[in-house]
Amino acid sequence: MKELQNDIMKVARPIAALIESFQKLPGVGPKSAQRLTYYLLHVPQTQLDDFAENLSKLKKDTVLCSICKNVNETDPCSICSDESRDDSTIMVVEQPLDVLAFERTGRFKGIYHVLHGAINPLENIGPDEIYIEDLLRRVKGQGSENIKEIIIATNPTMEGEATSMYLKKQLITVNSKLLITRLGMGIPTGADLEYADETTLNQAIEGRREI
Amino acid sequence: MKELQNDIMKVARPIAALIESFQKLPGVGPKSAQRLTYYLLHVPQTQLDDFAENLSKLKKDTVLCSICKNVNETDPCSICSDESRDDSTIMVVEQPLDVLAFERTGRFKGIYHVLHGAINPLENIGPDEIYIEDLLRRVKGQGSENIKEIIIATNPTMEGEATSMYLKKQLITVNSKLLITRLGMGIPTGADLEYADETTLNQAIEGRREI
Repeated sequence: MKELQNDIMKVARPIAALIESFQKLPGVGPKSAQRLTYYLLHVPQTQLDDFAENLSKLKKDTVLCSICKNVNETDPCSICSDESRDDSTIMVVEQPLDVLAFERTGRFKGIYHVLHGAINPLENIGPDEIYIEDLLRRVKGQGSENIKEIIIATNPTMEGEATSMYLKKQLITVNSKLLITRLGMGIPTGADLEYADETTLNQAIEGRREI
Repeated sequence: MKELQNDIMKVARPIAALIESFQKLPGVGPKSAQRLTYYLLHVPQTQLDDFAENLSKLKKDTVLCSICKNVNETDPCSICSDESRDDSTIMVVEQPLDVLAFERTGRFKGIYHVLHGAINPLENIGPDEIYIEDLLRRVKGQGSENIKEIIIATNPTMEGEATSMYLKKQLITVNSKLLITRLGMGIPTGADLEYADETTLNQAIEGRREI
Protein backbone atom coordinates (compact mmCIF):
# COMPACT_ATOMS: atom_id res chain seq x y z
CA MET A 1 0.00 0.00 0.00
CA LYS A 2 2.79 2.38 0.89
CA GLU A 3 4.69 1.66 -2.29
CA LEU A 4 1.55 2.33 -4.24
CA GLN A 5 0.99 5.70 -2.63
CA ASN A 6 4.52 6.72 -3.52
CA ASP A 7 3.90 5.66 -7.07
CA ILE A 8 0.78 7.67 -7.31
CA MET A 9 2.36 10.78 -5.84
CA LYS A 10 4.81 10.86 -8.71
CA VAL A 11 2.12 11.21 -11.37
CA ALA A 12 -0.18 14.12 -12.13
CA ARG A 13 -3.28 14.31 -9.92
CA PRO A 14 -5.88 13.60 -12.67
CA ILE A 15 -3.93 10.49 -13.61
CA ALA A 16 -3.55 9.34 -10.02
CA ALA A 17 -7.28 9.86 -9.42
CA LEU A 18 -8.27 7.65 -12.33
CA ILE A 19 -5.71 5.00 -11.37
CA GLU A 20 -7.33 4.91 -7.94
CA SER A 21 -10.81 4.57 -9.43
CA PHE A 22 -9.71 1.62 -11.54
CA GLN A 23 -8.04 -0.02 -8.57
CA LYS A 24 -11.33 -0.14 -6.72
CA LEU A 25 -12.62 -2.61 -9.31
CA PRO A 26 -12.37 -6.29 -8.48
CA GLY A 27 -9.38 -8.01 -10.06
CA VAL A 28 -7.69 -4.76 -11.12
CA GLY A 29 -4.33 -4.30 -9.40
CA PRO A 30 -2.07 -1.22 -9.33
CA LYS A 31 -0.25 -2.19 -12.54
CA SER A 32 -3.40 -2.84 -14.58
CA ALA A 33 -4.94 0.35 -13.26
CA GLN A 34 -1.90 2.30 -14.45
CA ARG A 35 -1.92 0.59 -17.81
CA LEU A 36 -5.62 1.31 -18.38
CA THR A 37 -5.26 4.92 -17.32
CA TYR A 38 -2.30 5.63 -19.58
CA TYR A 39 -4.10 3.88 -22.40
CA LEU A 40 -7.05 6.23 -21.99
CA LEU A 41 -4.75 9.24 -22.38
CA HIS A 42 -4.59 8.30 -26.06
CA VAL A 43 -8.30 7.90 -26.79
CA PRO A 44 -10.55 10.74 -28.03
CA GLN A 45 -12.26 12.86 -25.39
CA THR A 46 -15.67 11.73 -26.69
CA GLN A 47 -14.88 8.13 -25.78
CA LEU A 48 -13.95 9.25 -22.26
CA ASP A 49 -17.15 11.27 -21.99
CA ASP A 50 -19.27 8.35 -23.19
CA PHE A 51 -17.59 6.03 -20.72
CA ALA A 52 -18.19 8.58 -17.94
CA GLU A 53 -21.84 9.01 -18.89
CA ASN A 54 -22.40 5.26 -19.00
CA LEU A 55 -20.92 4.95 -15.53
CA SER A 56 -23.01 7.60 -13.88
CA LYS A 57 -26.19 6.48 -15.62
CA LEU A 58 -25.70 2.80 -14.79
CA LYS A 59 -27.70 2.85 -11.59
CA LYS A 60 -29.84 5.91 -12.30
CA ASP A 61 -31.39 4.35 -15.40
CA THR A 62 -31.93 0.85 -14.04
CA VAL A 63 -34.39 -0.56 -11.51
CA LEU A 64 -34.91 -3.88 -9.79
CA CYS A 65 -37.88 -5.70 -11.28
CA SER A 66 -40.51 -5.87 -8.53
CA ILE A 67 -41.35 -9.45 -9.50
CA CYS A 68 -38.05 -11.22 -10.14
CA LYS A 69 -35.55 -8.68 -8.70
CA ASN A 70 -33.45 -8.76 -11.86
CA VAL A 71 -31.81 -5.47 -12.89
CA ASN A 72 -33.62 -3.89 -15.82
CA GLU A 73 -34.74 -0.66 -17.39
CA THR A 74 -38.43 -1.35 -16.84
CA ASP A 75 -40.55 -2.70 -14.00
CA PRO A 76 -41.71 -5.42 -14.54
CA CYS A 77 -38.61 -6.44 -16.47
CA SER A 78 -38.57 -7.53 -20.08
CA ILE A 79 -38.58 -11.21 -19.14
CA CYS A 80 -41.40 -11.04 -16.56
CA SER A 81 -43.55 -8.99 -18.91
CA ASP A 82 -42.89 -11.27 -21.91
CA GLU A 83 -46.11 -13.23 -22.42
CA SER A 84 -44.36 -15.92 -24.44
CA ARG A 85 -42.36 -17.03 -21.36
CA ASP A 86 -43.59 -19.99 -19.38
CA ASP A 87 -44.49 -18.58 -15.96
CA SER A 88 -45.03 -22.02 -14.43
CA THR A 89 -41.28 -22.52 -13.97
CA ILE A 90 -39.13 -20.20 -11.88
CA MET A 91 -35.34 -20.47 -11.98
CA VAL A 92 -33.76 -19.14 -8.77
CA VAL A 93 -30.27 -17.67 -9.26
CA GLU A 94 -27.83 -15.77 -7.11
CA GLN A 95 -26.89 -12.89 -9.44
CA PRO A 96 -28.23 -10.97 -12.45
CA LEU A 97 -25.22 -12.27 -14.42
CA ASP A 98 -26.53 -15.81 -13.92
CA VAL A 99 -29.75 -14.82 -15.71
CA LEU A 100 -27.63 -13.63 -18.61
CA ALA A 101 -25.74 -16.94 -18.67
CA PHE A 102 -28.98 -18.93 -18.92
CA GLU A 103 -30.51 -16.56 -21.46
CA ARG A 104 -27.45 -17.07 -23.61
CA THR A 105 -28.21 -20.79 -23.89
CA GLY A 106 -31.65 -19.97 -25.30
CA ARG A 107 -32.96 -23.24 -23.82
CA PHE A 108 -34.78 -21.98 -20.75
CA LYS A 109 -38.19 -20.48 -21.48
CA GLY A 110 -39.40 -19.97 -17.91
CA ILE A 111 -38.95 -16.94 -15.67
CA TYR A 112 -36.39 -16.08 -12.99
CA HIS A 113 -35.92 -15.01 -9.42
CA VAL A 114 -32.68 -13.25 -8.52
CA LEU A 115 -31.63 -13.59 -4.86
CA HIS A 116 -28.74 -11.08 -5.09
CA GLY A 117 -26.46 -13.28 -3.05
CA ALA A 118 -26.38 -16.53 -1.10
CA ILE A 119 -26.66 -17.33 2.58
CA ASN A 120 -23.19 -16.87 4.06
CA PRO A 121 -22.96 -16.86 7.86
CA LEU A 122 -19.25 -15.96 7.76
CA GLU A 123 -20.09 -12.69 6.06
CA ASN A 124 -23.24 -12.13 8.08
CA ILE A 125 -25.54 -12.72 5.15
CA GLY A 126 -28.61 -14.49 6.46
CA PRO A 127 -31.87 -15.34 4.65
CA ASP A 128 -33.22 -11.85 5.36
CA GLU A 129 -30.34 -10.11 3.55
CA ILE A 130 -31.22 -11.65 0.19
CA TYR A 131 -34.53 -11.77 -1.70
CA ILE A 132 -35.81 -15.07 -0.26
CA GLU A 133 -38.91 -13.60 1.39
CA ASP A 134 -39.93 -12.17 -2.00
CA LEU A 135 -39.64 -15.59 -3.58
CA LEU A 136 -41.81 -17.18 -0.87
CA ARG A 137 -44.38 -14.44 -1.40
CA ARG A 138 -44.34 -15.19 -5.13
CA VAL A 139 -45.14 -18.87 -4.66
CA LYS A 140 -48.02 -18.31 -2.28
CA GLY A 141 -49.43 -15.00 -3.49
CA GLN A 142 -52.04 -14.22 -6.13
CA GLY A 143 -51.53 -16.05 -9.41
CA SER A 144 -49.24 -18.57 -7.75
CA GLU A 145 -51.54 -21.48 -8.72
CA ASN A 146 -49.74 -21.36 -12.06
CA ILE A 147 -46.31 -22.09 -10.62
CA LYS A 148 -45.38 -25.75 -10.92
CA GLU A 149 -41.61 -25.96 -10.65
CA ILE A 150 -38.85 -24.10 -8.90
CA ILE A 151 -35.37 -24.80 -10.28
CA ILE A 152 -32.76 -23.89 -7.71
CA ALA A 153 -29.75 -22.71 -9.68
CA THR A 154 -27.53 -21.31 -6.95
CA ASN A 155 -23.79 -21.92 -7.34
CA PRO A 156 -22.35 -25.33 -6.39
CA THR A 157 -20.43 -23.74 -3.50
CA MET A 158 -20.87 -24.11 0.26
CA GLU A 159 -23.00 -20.98 0.31
CA GLY A 160 -25.00 -21.93 -2.76
CA GLU A 161 -25.74 -25.37 -1.36
CA ALA A 162 -26.74 -23.97 2.02
CA THR A 163 -29.06 -21.52 0.29
CA SER A 164 -30.49 -24.32 -1.80
CA MET A 165 -31.27 -26.47 1.23
CA TYR A 166 -32.80 -23.56 3.11
CA LEU A 167 -34.93 -22.62 0.10
CA LYS A 168 -36.18 -26.17 -0.35
CA LYS A 169 -37.38 -26.36 3.25
CA GLN A 170 -39.08 -22.98 3.10
CA LEU A 171 -40.69 -23.50 -0.28
CA ILE A 172 -42.23 -26.82 0.74
CA THR A 173 -43.64 -25.30 3.91
CA VAL A 174 -45.25 -22.52 1.91
CA ASN A 175 -46.57 -24.58 -0.98
CA SER A 176 -46.36 -28.35 -0.70
CA LYS A 177 -47.47 -28.99 -4.29
CA LEU A 178 -44.38 -27.39 -5.82
CA LEU A 179 -41.84 -29.49 -7.70
CA ILE A 180 -38.45 -28.33 -6.45
CA THR A 181 -35.40 -29.24 -8.52
CA ARG A 182 -31.68 -28.50 -8.42
CA LEU A 183 -29.47 -28.00 -11.49
CA GLY A 184 -27.73 -31.17 -12.69
CA MET A 185 -24.19 -31.55 -11.39
CA GLY A 186 -21.26 -33.41 -12.85
CA ILE A 187 -18.40 -33.02 -15.29
CA PRO A 188 -18.53 -29.76 -17.27
CA THR A 189 -18.18 -29.98 -21.05
CA GLY A 190 -14.58 -29.81 -22.19
CA ALA A 191 -13.17 -30.67 -18.78
CA ASP A 192 -10.43 -33.19 -18.17
CA LEU A 193 -11.53 -36.07 -15.92
CA GLU A 194 -7.99 -36.32 -14.58
CA TYR A 195 -8.30 -32.92 -12.95
CA ALA A 196 -11.86 -33.19 -11.67
CA ASP A 197 -12.17 -33.12 -7.87
CA GLU A 198 -13.73 -35.97 -5.90
CA THR A 199 -16.97 -34.19 -5.13
CA THR A 200 -17.56 -33.45 -8.81
CA LEU A 201 -16.80 -37.06 -9.75
CA ASN A 202 -19.16 -38.33 -7.05
CA GLN A 203 -21.87 -36.01 -8.33
CA ALA A 204 -21.22 -37.20 -11.85
CA ILE A 205 -21.56 -40.86 -10.85
CA GLU A 206 -24.74 -40.19 -8.88
CA GLY A 207 -26.19 -38.17 -11.73
CA ARG A 208 -25.29 -40.67 -14.50
CA ARG A 209 -27.86 -41.19 -17.25
CA GLU A 210 -28.63 -43.96 -19.70
CA ILE A 211 -27.50 -43.16 -23.24
CA MET B 1 -18.64 -10.62 -32.22
CA LYS B 2 -22.10 -11.74 -33.16
CA GLU B 3 -22.46 -13.81 -30.02
CA LEU B 4 -21.48 -10.80 -28.02
CA GLN B 5 -24.11 -8.60 -29.62
CA ASN B 6 -26.74 -11.16 -28.80
CA ASP B 7 -25.55 -11.20 -25.23
CA ILE B 8 -25.74 -7.49 -24.94
CA MET B 9 -29.21 -7.29 -26.42
CA LYS B 10 -30.52 -9.40 -23.57
CA VAL B 11 -29.49 -6.93 -20.87
CA ALA B 12 -30.86 -3.50 -20.08
CA ARG B 13 -29.48 -0.71 -22.27
CA PRO B 14 -27.56 1.16 -19.51
CA ILE B 15 -25.85 -2.09 -18.57
CA ALA B 16 -25.06 -2.98 -22.18
CA ALA B 17 -23.62 0.50 -22.73
CA LEU B 18 -21.22 0.23 -19.83
CA ILE B 19 -20.21 -3.31 -20.80
CA GLU B 20 -19.32 -1.94 -24.23
CA SER B 21 -17.28 0.89 -22.73
CA PHE B 22 -15.29 -1.56 -20.62
CA GLN B 23 -14.72 -3.82 -23.61
CA LYS B 24 -12.96 -1.03 -25.44
CA LEU B 25 -10.18 -1.16 -22.84
CA PRO B 26 -7.11 -3.24 -23.72
CA GLY B 27 -7.11 -6.68 -22.13
CA VAL B 28 -10.76 -6.51 -21.08
CA GLY B 29 -12.86 -9.17 -22.80
CA PRO B 30 -16.65 -9.58 -22.87
CA LYS B 31 -16.72 -11.64 -19.67
CA SER B 32 -14.58 -9.26 -17.63
CA ALA B 33 -16.57 -6.31 -18.94
CA GLN B 34 -19.80 -7.97 -17.74
CA ARG B 35 -18.30 -8.83 -14.39
CA LEU B 36 -17.05 -5.27 -13.81
CA THR B 37 -20.37 -3.77 -14.86
CA TYR B 38 -22.48 -5.98 -12.61
CA TYR B 39 -20.06 -5.35 -9.79
CA LEU B 40 -20.61 -1.60 -10.19
CA LEU B 41 -24.36 -2.07 -9.79
CA HIS B 42 -23.65 -2.70 -6.12
CA VAL B 43 -21.41 0.30 -5.38
CA PRO B 44 -22.72 3.65 -4.11
CA GLN B 45 -23.71 6.21 -6.74
CA THR B 46 -21.02 8.59 -5.41
CA GLN B 47 -18.30 6.10 -6.36
CA LEU B 48 -19.73 5.89 -9.87
CA ASP B 49 -19.87 9.66 -10.13
CA ASP B 50 -16.28 10.01 -8.92
CA PHE B 51 -15.12 7.41 -11.42
CA ALA B 52 -17.03 9.23 -14.19
CA GLU B 53 -15.56 12.59 -13.22
CA ASN B 54 -12.03 11.20 -13.13
CA LEU B 55 -12.53 9.77 -16.60
CA SER B 56 -13.78 12.91 -18.25
CA LYS B 57 -11.19 15.08 -16.49
CA LEU B 58 -8.26 12.82 -17.35
CA LYS B 59 -7.33 14.59 -20.55
CA LYS B 60 -8.90 17.97 -19.82
CA ASP B 61 -6.74 18.52 -16.74
CA THR B 62 -3.46 17.23 -18.15
CA VAL B 63 -1.04 18.62 -20.71
CA LEU B 64 2.06 17.39 -22.50
CA CYS B 65 5.14 19.06 -21.08
CA SER B 66 6.53 21.22 -23.90
CA ILE B 67 10.08 20.18 -22.99
CA CYS B 68 9.98 16.42 -22.32
CA LYS B 69 6.49 15.51 -23.68
CA ASN B 70 5.57 13.69 -20.48
CA VAL B 71 1.94 13.94 -19.38
CA ASN B 72 1.53 16.30 -16.46
CA GLU B 73 -0.69 18.91 -14.86
CA THR B 74 1.74 21.74 -15.47
CA ASP B 75 3.91 22.86 -18.35
CA PRO B 76 6.86 22.52 -17.90
CA CYS B 77 6.22 19.34 -15.93
CA SER B 78 7.21 18.78 -12.32
CA ILE B 79 10.39 16.94 -13.32
CA CYS B 80 11.59 19.45 -15.94
CA SER B 81 10.94 22.36 -13.58
CA ASP B 82 12.65 20.66 -10.62
CA GLU B 83 15.98 22.48 -10.20
CA SER B 84 17.48 19.63 -8.19
CA ARG B 85 17.37 17.34 -11.24
CA ASP B 86 20.51 16.92 -13.30
CA ASP B 87 19.65 18.36 -16.72
CA SER B 88 22.86 17.11 -18.30
CA THR B 89 21.42 13.60 -18.70
CA ILE B 90 18.29 12.87 -20.71
CA MET B 91 16.65 9.45 -20.55
CA VAL B 92 14.65 8.74 -23.72
CA VAL B 93 11.64 6.45 -23.14
CA GLU B 94 8.72 5.26 -25.24
CA GLN B 95 5.83 5.91 -22.86
CA PRO B 96 4.87 8.05 -19.85
CA LEU B 97 4.54 4.81 -17.85
CA ASP B 98 8.25 4.17 -18.40
CA VAL B 99 9.04 7.46 -16.66
CA LEU B 100 7.00 6.24 -13.72
CA ALA B 101 8.93 2.96 -13.68
CA PHE B 102 12.29 4.76 -13.50
CA GLU B 103 11.05 7.29 -10.95
CA ARG B 104 10.00 4.39 -8.76
CA THR B 105 13.61 3.21 -8.55
CA GLY B 106 14.65 6.60 -7.20
CA ARG B 107 18.11 6.09 -8.74
CA PHE B 108 17.86 8.28 -11.81
CA LYS B 109 18.29 11.99 -11.11
CA GLY B 110 18.37 13.26 -14.69
CA ILE B 111 15.47 14.37 -16.87
CA TYR B 112 13.40 12.58 -19.49
CA HIS B 113 12.16 12.66 -23.04
CA VAL B 114 8.99 10.74 -23.87
CA LEU B 115 8.70 9.63 -27.50
CA HIS B 116 5.08 8.38 -27.20
CA GLY B 117 5.81 5.31 -29.26
CA ALA B 118 8.53 3.58 -31.23
CA ILE B 119 9.30 3.40 -34.92
CA ASN B 120 7.13 0.61 -36.35
CA PRO B 121 6.93 0.40 -40.15
CA LEU B 122 4.30 -2.36 -39.98
CA GLU B 123 1.91 0.01 -38.24
CA ASN B 124 2.96 3.01 -40.32
CA ILE B 125 4.69 4.72 -37.43
CA GLY B 126 7.73 6.48 -38.80
CA PRO B 127 10.13 8.88 -37.07
CA ASP B 128 7.76 11.79 -37.74
CA GLU B 129 4.87 10.18 -35.87
CA ILE B 130 6.70 10.21 -32.53
CA TYR B 131 8.51 13.03 -30.70
CA ILE B 132 11.96 12.48 -32.21
CA GLU B 133 12.20 15.88 -33.87
CA ASP B 134 11.54 17.51 -30.50
CA LEU B 135 14.39 15.55 -28.95
CA LEU B 136 16.78 16.62 -31.72
CA ARG B 137 15.71 20.21 -31.19
CA ARG B 138 16.40 19.82 -27.47
CA VAL B 139 19.99 18.70 -28.01
CA LYS B 140 20.90 21.45 -30.43
CA GLY B 141 18.77 24.34 -29.21
CA GLN B 142 19.41 27.02 -26.62
CA GLY B 143 20.84 25.69 -23.35
CA SER B 144 21.81 22.44 -25.00
CA GLU B 145 25.50 22.98 -24.12
CA ASN B 146 24.57 21.50 -20.73
CA ILE B 147 23.48 18.16 -22.13
CA LYS B 148 26.19 15.53 -21.86
CA GLU B 149 24.51 12.15 -22.06
CA ILE B 150 21.47 10.66 -23.74
CA ILE B 151 20.39 7.32 -22.30
CA ILE B 152 18.23 5.48 -24.82
CA ALA B 153 15.74 3.48 -22.78
CA THR B 154 13.38 2.23 -25.47
CA ASN B 155 12.04 -1.31 -25.02
CA PRO B 156 14.26 -4.26 -25.98
CA THR B 157 11.88 -5.16 -28.83
CA MET B 158 12.34 -4.98 -32.60
CA GLU B 159 10.66 -1.57 -32.65
CA GLY B 160 12.54 -0.28 -29.62
CA GLU B 161 15.88 -1.38 -31.09
CA ALA B 162 15.10 0.18 -34.45
CA THR B 163 14.17 3.41 -32.72
CA SER B 164 17.35 3.26 -30.69
CA MET B 165 19.52 2.86 -33.78
CA TYR B 166 17.74 5.62 -35.65
CA LEU B 167 18.05 7.94 -32.65
CA LYS B 168 21.74 7.27 -32.26
CA LYS B 169 22.44 8.18 -35.89
CA GLN B 170 20.35 11.34 -35.73
CA LEU B 171 21.67 12.49 -32.37
CA ILE B 172 25.30 12.16 -33.46
CA THR B 173 24.60 14.11 -36.65
CA VAL B 174 23.04 16.92 -34.63
CA ASN B 175 25.54 17.05 -31.79
CA SER B 176 28.70 15.00 -32.14
CA LYS B 177 29.88 15.68 -28.57
CA LEU B 178 26.98 13.79 -26.97
CA LEU B 179 27.60 10.56 -25.08
CA ILE B 180 24.89 8.21 -26.25
CA THR B 181 24.21 5.13 -24.14
CA ARG B 182 21.72 2.29 -24.14
CA LEU B 183 20.22 0.60 -21.05
CA GLY B 184 22.16 -2.46 -19.86
CA MET B 185 20.70 -5.72 -21.10
CA GLY B 186 20.90 -9.17 -19.62
CA ILE B 187 19.22 -11.42 -17.11
CA PRO B 188 16.49 -9.70 -15.09
CA THR B 189 16.58 -10.07 -11.30
CA GLY B 190 14.67 -13.09 -10.08
CA ALA B 191 14.68 -14.79 -13.47
CA ASP B 192 15.50 -18.43 -14.03
CA LEU B 193 18.51 -18.92 -16.34
CA GLU B 194 16.97 -22.14 -17.59
CA TYR B 195 14.11 -20.23 -19.18
CA ALA B 196 16.07 -17.27 -20.57
CA ASP B 197 16.06 -17.01 -24.36
CA GLU B 198 19.25 -17.07 -26.42
CA THR B 199 19.28 -13.37 -27.22
CA THR B 200 19.01 -12.46 -23.56
CA LEU B 201 21.81 -14.90 -22.65
CA ASN B 202 24.01 -13.49 -25.41
CA GLN B 203 23.36 -9.97 -24.17
CA ALA B 204 24.15 -11.09 -20.64
CA ILE B 205 27.49 -12.60 -21.71
CA GLU B 206 28.42 -9.52 -23.74
CA GLY B 207 27.44 -7.23 -20.90
CA ARG B 208 29.26 -9.19 -18.15
CA ARG B 209 31.02 -7.20 -15.48
CA GLU B 210 33.88 -7.86 -13.07
CA ILE B 211 32.71 -8.38 -9.51
